[in-house]
Amino acid sequence: MKVRALIPLEDTVKILDQTRLPKEMIYNEYGDYRDIVASIKKLEIRGAPAIGIAGAYALAIAARADVDTDVEHFKRVLTDVASEIKDARPTAANLAWAVNRVLNVAHEYQGDNKAEFAIHLWDEAGAILKEDEELCNAIGRHGEELIKDGDTILTHCNAGILATGGMGTALAVIYAAHERGKRIRVYADETRPLLQGARLTAWELQQAGIEVVLNVDSASGILMRQGRISCVILGADRIAQNGDIANKIGTYNVAVLARHHRIPFYVAAPYSTFDRSLETGDDIPIEERSPEEVVNWGGIRIAPEGVDVYSPAFDITPHELISAYITDKGVLPGGRDD
Amino acid sequence: MKVRALIPLEDTVKILDQTRLPKEMIYNEYGDYRDIVASIKKLEIRGAPAIGIAGAYALAIAARADVDTDVEHFKRVLTDVASEIKDARPTAANLAWAVNRVLNVAHEYQGDNKAEFAIHLWDEAGAILKEDEELCNAIGRHGEELIKDGDTILTHCNAGILATGGMGTALAVIYAAHERGKRIRVYADETRPLLQGARLTAWELQQAGIEVVLNVDSASGILMRQGRISCVILGADRIAQNGDIANKIGTYNVAVLARHHRIPFYVAAPYSTFDRSLETGDDIPIEERSPEEVVNWGGIRIAPEGVDVYSPAFDITPHELISAYITDKGVLPGGRDD
Repeated sequence: MKVRALIPLEDTVKILDQTRLPKEMIYNEYGDYRDIVASIKKLEIRGAPAIGIAGAYALAIAARADVDTDVEHFKRVLTDVASEIKDARPTAANLAWAVNRVLNVAHEYQGDNKAEFAIHLWDEAGAILKEDEELCNAIGRHGEELIKDGDTILTHCNAGILATGGMGTALAVIYAAHERGKRIRVYADETRPLLQGARLTAWELQQAGIEVVLNVDSASGILMRQGRISCVILGADRIAQNGDIANKIGTYNVAVLARHHRIPFYVAAPYSTFDRSLETGDDIPIEERSPEEVVNWGGIRIAPEGVDVYSPAFDITPHELISAYITDKGVLPGGRDD
Repeated sequence: MKVRALIPLEDTVKILDQTRLPKEMIYNEYGDYRDIVASIKKLEIRGAPAIGIAGAYALAIAARADVDTDVEHFKRVLTDVASEIKDARPTAANLAWAVNRVLNVAHEYQGDNKAEFAIHLWDEAGAILKEDEELCNAIGRHGEELIKDGDTILTHCNAGILATGGMGTALAVIYAAHERGKRIRVYADETRPLLQGARLTAWELQQAGIEVVLNVDSASGILMRQGRISCVILGADRIAQNGDIANKIGTYNVAVLARHHRIPFYVAAPYSTFDRSLETGDDIPIEERSPEEVVNWGGIRIAPEGVDVYSPAFDITPHELISAYITDKGVLPGGRDD
């Protein structure tokens, strides 16, 4: 069976428990929206698109409860449930967007057939999942043309199956190239502090039978200097109007190194990631993460008590360092002058 | 009491157990050379100069045993003991150099007074320690002139008290500037995979009352882009004739980033680190470390079983990326053109 972050069944969903990766691949089946909320909170599922899909299904599952309640009453109940779901990860824009989209379908429903009402919501969640899958496929299809047989690709963090409803963004390009029979090899930055590269990217590429090598983040330079890297492909959380991107901490380091070595640096993301409300990357405030993520690992303290920590969640990479944007609408040129 | 990697007492040495840092500061007192060999093997003491000093004292301590044996017999015994000590870390050039230096004193001794013989060896170990202390102080004195009041310095790995017989190399500059009353702040790269920055550099600067902030290695770029870094100072394991350096993995990334941001990049190392047998950095083979250092942390597996790992121990930074070398003989210009 193919790996997926979330798989809808008849009236439940299976969520791959990412907290147990890479040790065990366990899907938990949930038929109660509260369990999905808990699953999102516990980070069993993460990655903006994947969280959105889980939230959409959570609301759709809630709509199946209390078969005897009348629809109008239920619309009010679901408004509260939607807030509860969105609160599971309050800063996740995709979660609010997806939940609201299902909630709108509820409010727009004019009939009084509770079963039909529930099916409409379930179908909307399915549409969100399907659209995300297609979007991933489109990114893969467009990006794949940039990859040559024998290429070695460096990636950072996890922008793959585990983060989306489909094949991912950055990794969709890799999967598509692999599918087309191109022999490729991937170097995965481990991605401190939360090690999404080591725990998730290495695992999902391994599952797909793609050659993957893990490295500490600070080895990206020597890899490029040794001529081992054909191109860099990674994702983006937000893209400003001028093309500057916000993405996982360390993205900027890789971008500067890629420029220094004249290695193409590709950003793979849905076209919707372009945020017209942001003029440049400097308009994006840098969120800081808890110091605990840096100083503790599996309960072991790795730094002295009381030490100050600077732990930005992401960094800004200016468009001048980006060779191209691989989107579902095609490949758009970046601002690099080489 | 000031922190030191090794403190000689009357006829024993105290070694700071670095494997217990940053949790506990514990000195183990050793009066048997075999215990010092074990201590070196267990990495209680690490850093090229510090290991050399420990090895020198181990041989000197061995010379105190068997008071009744005649000196000539004992010279032969010590030759075997010296091999045993050098085998504790076979690739540590400093260890062999320091042990051989004490062994030469033994072989050159012409008298038959066993007690006097032992004192000569002990004094030679003391001379090695003293010379290293002075060398560190000289590096600090020269480098300190490059530091302005209010500077913020980025460092990588641990080139401090814990690695040497004195105040360190890169950190000696910081200690000297602090001593001179300059207000400085240090950002310490955590330095994956073995986290010497988090475990050792953050700890020793904290002990010295110097403001230190810990960051993941991949945050060095955003720190520079935000204008938070005045200069970079780090150490070097080897320096080729043309000025290329070999140093802890990640040094090259920082060098490229510093160049991109026009931030001075200083290498602090004893003048003896220049190795005339190496024409350029490309003559230095890149040693690979065990994958276990990357995929395991405190017994917890952080990557899937069977994943390939690329874990170079160090990288090469070409002289074109180095602003200056801070040595005990003064500050030498690097190859950077800005």
